[in-house]
Amino acid sequence: MSAPLYEGKAKIVYATDDPQVYRTYFKDDATAFNAQKRGQISGKGAINCAVSSYLFRVLAQAGVTNHFIEQISEREMRVQAVEIVPLEVVVRNLAAGSLCKQTGIAEGTAIAPPLVEFYLKDDALGDPLLTPDRLRLLQVATEAEVQHLQGAALQVNTLLQAFFNRCGITLVDFKLEFGRDRQGQILLADEISPDTCRLWDQQEIDPEKRILDKDRFRRDLGNVEAAYARVLELVTQQAEL
Amino acid sequence: MSAPLYEGKAKIVYATDDPQVYRTYFKDDATAFNAQKRGQISGKGAINCAVSSYLFRVLAQAGVTNHFIEQISEREMRVQAVEIVPLEVVVRNLAAGSLCKQTGIAEGTAIAPPLVEFYLKDDALGDPLLTPDRLRLLQVATEAEVQHLQGAALQVNTLLQAFFNRCGITLVDFKLEFGRDRQGQILLADEISPDTCRLWDQQEIDPEKRILDKDRFRRDLGNVEAAYARVLELVTQQAEL
Repeated sequence: MSAPLYEGKAKIVYATDDPQVYRTYFKDDATAFNAQKRGQISGKGAINCAVSSYLFRVLAQAGVTNHFIEQISEREMRVQAVEIVPLEVVVRNLAAGSLCKQTGIAEGTAIAPPLVEFYLKDDALGDPLLTPDRLRLLQVATEAEVQHLQGAALQVNTLLQAFFNRCGITLVDFKLEFGRDRQGQILLADEISPDTCRLWDQQEIDPEKRILDKDRFRRDLGNVEAAYARVLELVTQQAEL
Repeated sequence: MSAPLYEGKAKIVYATDDPQVYRTYFKDDATAFNAQKRGQISGKGAINCAVSSYLFRVLAQAGVTNHFIEQISEREMRVQAVEIVPLEVVVRNLAAGSLCKQTGIAEGTAIAPPLVEFYLKDDALGDPLLTPDRLRLLQVATEAEVQHLQGAALQVNTLLQAFFNRCGITLVDFKLEFGRDRQGQILLADEISPDTCRLWDQQEIDPEKRILDKDRFRRDLGNVEAAYARVLELVTQQAEL
């Protein structure tokens, strides 16, 4: 087993014999609020690996190029080797999380058209929100790449919203990361899971009970593992239809 | 003496016999970091009242409509009665302050073209930075008003940069506030002073000694009163030429 290329908060990335391919390992470690809160969600690595695998396949079938190649074990997938663009691209359909905290907009407020926001992926700086001008100033991506990320994020949103709707889940918001392959092509990367999406059970009206994502961990709502397992169950059922 | 209409961190606003006119009183109170740091800068009220009066006149002569009518005492001016738009409009020519803290850009980095940024004026929320999308979402100003604010801020920047340059001062960045009068017209309001501008003495190379503004208070650099007095002296000399 080779040394990790990179160990993040929720995943470890390894090189493989093929320089074009990485292997990612999904951990149970959970962090929130820029790693000020740390814990474990038992079984999370396997769930997020499976959910991400399903969703990356759904997106690829709809034409969204992404890094996923195949799931190779309960917690591991083979992916295209990319260098991550240091941006978190967030799409918001309903107001939640930092948007509410920062602006005072009430949680659950519908946002139409959806908001695409860019955050600098930098733990030391606390992943700050970037205005388009600041994004330009920092030069972490070209104008053309930013346009591409914006368009891809909205396309992913349309596809995932429809998919999760069929699962009986409301896609509140989510965070995407992208990478550049050796040819400089931008690919959707990272993961798409209850760690990176806010997902509300459409069967539940109670504003706490309906939460099926990492907010259960962030906000100490309990039943974290059950919520993650429920997402996997609903996604699996839908993906196999 | 009537009761204040509004008491802010650095000024008190009073009604007058004329409903179209307010009287503003400049205090010596100083706050920083969203009022987490509090103090007094002796003589600041008089200096900021005088500096603002000069600068509002300079801007009016160049065609920038603003609320200033006349200075009526050392610490008081008569201004057009406006309702403040709850936005802080910041123009940045060189990187400093929260821009550096949030993005890691080095202090003093030239920003060309200058950055115009909007912050929600809301102490409880910590005056958050707004992206254009968030600004639209919050509906604190119409699209046409935002366009107007952006244009007015850049025009003020061009005029103030030239004026301060003649004073031997570099205008690093500044914050403007605007108000709506009874006809709904947008006027530049509030104050323009070492409290609201970052001003660097062009004669000084030392990165701390050159600071002639509230950063001396924010960063406990000493000689706060002397720096404010120096700004008034240079502005007065230039305004009387």
